[in-house]
Parts: sequence; C-alpha cells; structure tokens
Amino acid sequence: MFEPAVYQKRRAELMERVGSGLILLYGNGELPINFKANTYPFRQDSTLLYYAGLKRPNLALLLDVDAGKTYLCGQEHSLEDVIWMGPQAGLEELARCSAIDGVLSLSAMANRLAKAGNRLHFLPPYRCEQEARLSDWLGIPVENLKANSSQSLILAVVAQRSRKDAREVAEIEKALKVTASLHLSIMTQQLAGRKDYELVEEARFRAALKGCSFAYAPILTAEGQILHKHRRGELLREGRLLLNDMGAETETGYAADITRTFPVSKTFTTQQRELYEIVLQAQEKAIAACKPGRPFRDVHLLAATALTEGLKALGLMKGDVEEAVSVGAHALFFPHGLGHMMGLDVHDMENLGEDKVGYDENFRRSEQFGLAYLRLARPLQKGFVVTVEPGLYFIPSLMEKWAAEKKHENFICYEAVNQYLDFGGIRIEDNILITDSGCKVLGDVHIPKSVADIEALRGESLF
Amino acid sequence: MFEPAVYQKRRAELMERVGSGLILLYGNGELPINFKANTYPFRQDSTLLYYAGLKRPNLALLLDVDAGKTYLCGQEHSLEDVIWMGPQAGLEELARCSAIDGVLSLSAMANRLAKAGNRLHFLPPYRCEQEARLSDWLGIPVENLKANSSQSLILAVVAQRSRKDAREVAEIEKALKVTASLHLSIMTQQLAGRKDYELVEEARFRAALKGCSFAYAPILTAEGQILHKHRRGELLREGRLLLNDMGAETETGYAADITRTFPVSKTFTTQQRELYEIVLQAQEKAIAACKPGRPFRDVHLLAATALTEGLKALGLMKGDVEEAVSVGAHALFFPHGLGHMMGLDVHDMENLGEDKVGYDENFRRSEQFGLAYLRLARPLQKGFVVTVEPGLYFIPSLMEKWAAEKKHENFICYEAVNQYLDFGGIRIEDNILITDSGCKVLGDVHIPKSVADIEALRGESLF
Repeated sequence: MFEPAVYQKRRAELMERVGSGLILLYGNGELPINFKANTYPFRQDSTLLYYAGLKRPNLALLLDVDAGKTYLCGQEHSLEDVIWMGPQAGLEELARCSAIDGVLSLSAMANRLAKAGNRLHFLPPYRCEQEARLSDWLGIPVENLKANSSQSLILAVVAQRSRKDAREVAEIEKALKVTASLHLSIMTQQLAGRKDYELVEEARFRAALKGCSFAYAPILTAEGQILHKHRRGELLREGRLLLNDMGAETETGYAADITRTFPVSKTFTTQQRELYEIVLQAQEKAIAACKPGRPFRDVHLLAATALTEGLKALGLMKGDVEEAVSVGAHALFFPHGLGHMMGLDVHDMENLGEDKVGYDENFRRSEQFGLAYLRLARPLQKGFVVTVEPGLYFIPSLMEKWAAEKKHENFICYEAVNQYLDFGGIRIEDNILITDSGCKVLGDVHIPKSVADIEALRGESLF
Repeated sequence: MFEPAVYQKRRAELMERVGSGLILLYGNGELPINFKANTYPFRQDSTLLYYAGLKRPNLALLLDVDAGKTYLCGQEHSLEDVIWMGPQAGLEELARCSAIDGVLSLSAMANRLAKAGNRLHFLPPYRCEQEARLSDWLGIPVENLKANSSQSLILAVVAQRSRKDAREVAEIEKALKVTASLHLSIMTQQLAGRKDYELVEEARFRAALKGCSFAYAPILTAEGQILHKHRRGELLREGRLLLNDMGAETETGYAADITRTFPVSKTFTTQQRELYEIVLQAQEKAIAACKPGRPFRDVHLLAATALTEGLKALGLMKGDVEEAVSVGAHALFFPHGLGHMMGLDVHDMENLGEDKVGYDENFRRSEQFGLAYLRLARPLQKGFVVTVEPGLYFIPSLMEKWAAEKKHENFICYEAVNQYLDFGGIRIEDNILITDSGCKVLGDVHIPKSVADIEALRGESLF
C-alpha cells in the first residue's frame, strides 16, 4: 500500500466533495467456493482499496463528515483465529497504516448507522454478500438497498477515482510491465499444436512469480470472433490468428488490459494482413484523437469510421461511410465499444454503474446495436486512463441473422462477407493516459503491433 | 462427466430415499470479484455435480418424486450471449447429456415450486447468491431459508454421497496421482532461499497443465503451527521443517488432500526426527484401526493417545496417558480433528452441515477444546473416503495462555515444552477408502513419509 498520508488526503477530498453526513465505505467479505470455509482468493473492494489500502476481509470505513473524523470498523481476531490463521494485526494497527483516526467494532458502527437516517451515504452493493451485510447493518431490505444508495457519493467517488495521480499511473505502469512480459513470452513461442490453456496457465505462473494475478480472465483464442471467449481446450493451428487479451493486476490492485492479435504461423496471410492493417490504423487514429475535452464517443465513432473506410476499400462494405456509421452498419464487424476507464478495476468503477462512470447529463447511452455497448462516452479529462481497443470480427450467427434480415444491405456486401465466415477476429488494445493536451500510450516495454514488427518477432523466434 | 445413466441412477436412488414430493437441487451462479461482469472461476455446486454432472451456471434440477419425472431448469442463451461467449449447448442438449427427462424455464420452475408447498424439499444454501435466487423463487425470506430446508433431503444426500462407488474412487485416484506429482516435485527441490509462493504457483501451474486446479488453498509453510496458514511471502530457511498440505481437484470435481512434512535441508535434526516419528506412528496406528463399524471418534482418540505416549516419552507430557487424553491435555499439541470425509468437496458435503455428515443421534459433537474440531465422529462404513491427518504443533500464543492458566499442569511439562517454542508443526495426511473389512490407503504413487525415505529422496535430489 501507499504511505498513510495518501489515503488521509483522499478521504479528506471525498468528505469535502460530499459536504456533510456520514459516509460508509464497506470492504468485501470472503466468498465460498463449495462450502463456507473453502473460499476464493480474497479481493478487496476497489473503493475501499482507494480510500484505505487495507486488504483484510469484512472491514468498513466510516467517515463522519460533520465531525471530520474517520473510523476503521471491523472485528478483532480471537485466539481461535490466531491458532488457525496465525498472528494478525489488530484494528488499531491497521488504522495507523492508513492514518485513520479511530476504530469501531461492527456493533458500534451499526449503532451509528442506525442513528444517521438520511444523513447516511453508501454505495450500491454489487455482491450478494455485501447486500446481506448492508441490509443487516442498516435494517433496509436487500431490494431497497440500491434505491437508498447515495447518488452524490457515487458521483464524488467517480470524480475522484477518474483522475489518476502519478502514484496510480506508476502502479498501472508496473502492471503493464508484467503484462508486456506475458505477451512477449507468448508471441515468441511455437504456437501451432499448443493448447490455449497451456499458454494461459504459463502466463498466470509468470505473473504470479512477479507478485501479480490476472486482472480478468484472459481471452486467448484463435476464435477471436467470440468476444469474451473463456472456454478453454482449443488446439492452435497454423494459418489462424491468435487473439490474446490479457492483463496483470499488481499487489496494490491496479490493472493493465492489453490485446494483441498475431499469426499462429510466422507470417500473416494476405487476407489477415489487409484486415489487420485496417484495425491498426483505426486504433492509431483513435489514440491520436484522444485529448482533454474530446468526448470519447467521438473517438469511438472516429474509429468506427476508419474501420468502415477500410472495409469499404476491401469490398466488404459499400455506400456512404458516414451514413453507414451513423446507422450502425459497421457494428456487424465491430459490435463493441472502443474502450473503457481502467485503474483499480479493469473496467474502472463499473460496480458503481457504467452510466455513472462513462455518461453524464449531456451524454446518454445509445440504444443502437454496437454503440449501446460503449462504456465511456463523455469528454475525456486529464488524468483519465482508458483503453483504446477497436476490432474486426466475423461472427457467424450474427452474420447469418443480419443477412437473413437483409439488415443494412445498402452498406454491407453480404456475398463478399461470406468469404470471411471462418476468419475469426482481430483486436488491438492499448492503455492510454490523458495528458494536458493529448494522451500518452502507457507501457515502457513495447509490445509489437505493426505487421512488420510482429513478423520480425515471430520470424526471429527460435521455435 | 460420466455416462448419462450414472446420473439417472443416482437421481432414482435419491427419489426413492426421499419417498415423495418435489426435490429442488440448485446449482451455483457466478460470483463477482470487483464488479458483476468480472467473475471468479466458476465452480458448480457439488450436489448438482453429483446428480447431473453439468457445469453451466444458474441451472437447477427439479425431481418430481410422485410423478417419477426429472427436469433440467435454466435459461436458454440469447444471440447476445452467443456474440459474447460463443455458441452454447441448449438446455435440451444438456439434459440429454445427463439423461434428464425434460427441461423447464426458470419461470415455469418457479411456478411449480410455488404450488409445491410443504411437499418441496431443498438443501440449505451456503452462498449469498444462492440465498438470493432461492428466496426469489420460493417467496421465502432469506433468514427463513435454512429453517425451511429439508432435513430428510439432507440425510438422503449425505447417505448417498458418503459411499463412494468405483467410478468416484477412480476420480479420487486421478486427483491423487496429480497431487503426488506436485508433492514429489516440491520434495526434490532446493528449498532454502526459496519463497513459499514460488513453490505454490509452480504447483498450481503443474496441476493446471494436467487439467486440475487446487481443491483448496494450499498450506505450504515452515510455520506449520499456523494450522491454516494462507498468507504468503515466507522465505524458507535451512534447519526448518516444511509442511505442505496440497491437493488437486480433477475436472469432474473430485479432490485429493495430502500433507507431508519434511526438512528444508537434506536431513531432519534429532529433535525434528523424534517428533516426526511420533506423528508418523500415530498416523499408521490410526490408519490400521480404520474399518467398517468403528467410530471415527475412536480412531481420533487412538491417534491422540499415540501422540500423548510419544510426548510423554520425550518428556513433554506426564501422568496417565488415558486420563490426559480424556481431559484433552494433548490438544495443546494436537488441537484439530484427525480427519474428514473427502469426495466432490475436500471436506465432503460440509455445506450440508458438518454435524449432518460426521455425527448422528449416537455421536454428538464434544465441546472440549480440540475434540470439538473433529469433523467426523460416527462409525465408518464401507465406501467412505476419509483423511487421516494427525499432527503436532507448538503454537506460541496457545502455549502462553495455557501456561499462564496452568492448564492441565498435571499432564504438561511446561518447562520442557518451552524449548520447542520455535519448532513449528508437523502433519502427515493420507486419504483412505474404507473397504469390506478394513481400509486401503489411496494413491498409486508413493509419496515418501518415513524418515528414511524422505532423507533418501532429499539426499539423492540433484539440487
């Protein structure tokens, strides 16, 4: 964790933003696998990590804004706990590590919560175990918790966590350094004949040796058209493109989120190279367009336009490019959003509500297929860290449905598209930091993404 | 999974045992890490695995005992699901894999449940997400679910799952084969100077390459006195004993649970060997005593007696051995139970209630420190698979407390015990199958446990 003063300052800013009342920030509990005592690896709630940095289960922070006092709430360990789990820091000691003023037992905390009435601010839960505890502490039925959560607290947390300071960027850079080593290790291997999970598990092991876990379940597949393919067991074959979407999470909880697509063989086929260049150009254009004040939705549409232009040049789309993008015809090939915020969560703060993080009063979520999946639309600001990840996919079931409906037939050349039924998918993703006047691609270690660099790396590799 | 007929037969037996009414067996849902879409690796509920073998989230089985009909209940996938997760088997197809008669949507299932009244049998939930779904389906408040769960269903499931058939034993043998390879790989390495997590992560990787995960968080530590030490970051040093409690889980969900304790160096010290031999003798005596009809509590007490005899011979305990064991004086050094059932869960069926699995009307749980932790007390039966895992530990905080209280001072030589303050702990654990007239230690691959075998292995290893 960082020095105690970091958290103290963050809490002071939060209290100032919220203005008055009592703020409850609850941490995560343990989650059972197949019985209560057999639990998944513990992951602290990211907001608690941000404001306290403490990783023990079942903690809460109580911020008394009116009194300007902060409390760490939890249960002290018993001798029985010590026998089973070893000596543990007491609450006082934990509070000191995070410069928290005092400690409260959970029952003392519940007493204060009961008295707070509508002065109480809390965030909406996203785990059932949080709901159970919250409902118990607050005496509010589970189904009413979301409605009773504090909109002003959500907005204050989002405003604060959206702008990453130098310390946070350094943590993301750490995650990226490990992530680069995972990607490079895979890109330099003999891949034909390998099973997908062997590569994933080797990467998990490499990350673990560096103190990192995966920030999300990696998508490593030659079936890139399955956007979130997590099922394993695939045998990699010559001639296919391998899509690897894989990012590490550091011990402090910060994520990286990188995608590269490259040939299982040593070189791209002509068809693969043509489509790959389209995605790469779209990504580079999109990155070049990111700067403070520019709505990310515009950047998304810019990428969509670049993709559409490329597909038109290849004979897969036709008609007026702007019109095609405005009606969403390109979404047959690019059905997801260009990117999302990233930080302590790979989709940063998604638990607080995607629309709270990525939209505002001026930017409402579209209902158009494809654009509706865009997680971030509002104007970029200095300090935002976002992913830029355009892609092109050939999804048989979607192609079939649209073709049968003759959907957007003025813009899509269905006959030509059918030649790509078995193509798979391409995505290229980097993580960028919005700076004073533009943006910076994060990551000191270059992970090849031009065709020439990738073919050079694959060609030179000694497999 | 096994052939469809296996599950059909198991369900028929369950329906016969329960006799009448409607049986609901619900599977697990996804659990969020830091936001809803970022989930932990999915683990199916073991009872659903036992009766259906299906691994998709959010399934349920409905067994209409009176009509003799079985239904697979769930939600069909949408086109959107296919875009994001790829083509998925339909419910009909899943039902066929498990020889289930028909399929029902979740709402059709909820309709039937609503009409069932007190003819409905369901198991008590152990995850909050299960509670939420159950409460929703049944219209029963979460706090009343446990009280409304079916005691006869629990007992029927426990009776059936307690006796492992040849197919299940073969799966446990598979888990043991992988587990042996993990243990042997660690036992043959240079250990001094290594970090604990390097060894754990390497083992996780090895297991994953064989299609296995860990059945539980491994306990790998030179601080064996911390019974469930999961905190990592320890540097292994010459002269210490390393305790490794590590077991694989197969793709079908069956567990192994093996502990070995051995020197970080190539040989035991005299003190280590003396204590180790006591534990090993106790374990061998306990295993030899396991047979159908013998209460496992007697085997536990037999092991406790052997440990106490050994400690007395070493001058750490004194007085009458039987009396010492009956008052629980040995629990200072052996504070946990001798073992537990094992199968689809490492603590098999613990989610249904430890007392339901390990106790009955004749065997009530003791309240004595140590014995109270025993998970299995009732008589062994043919087909049970149990762990036998005695240990000796020197737990400073417990020793300090007992010494201050002069607890059992007629049986404990506190002055001598203080010489072992920094010793750590020893545990030796194997998995046994109760046979017609005795028992069989499972695992075709021998993992050394005699001092001679361990020293030979460590001595011959080429580090």
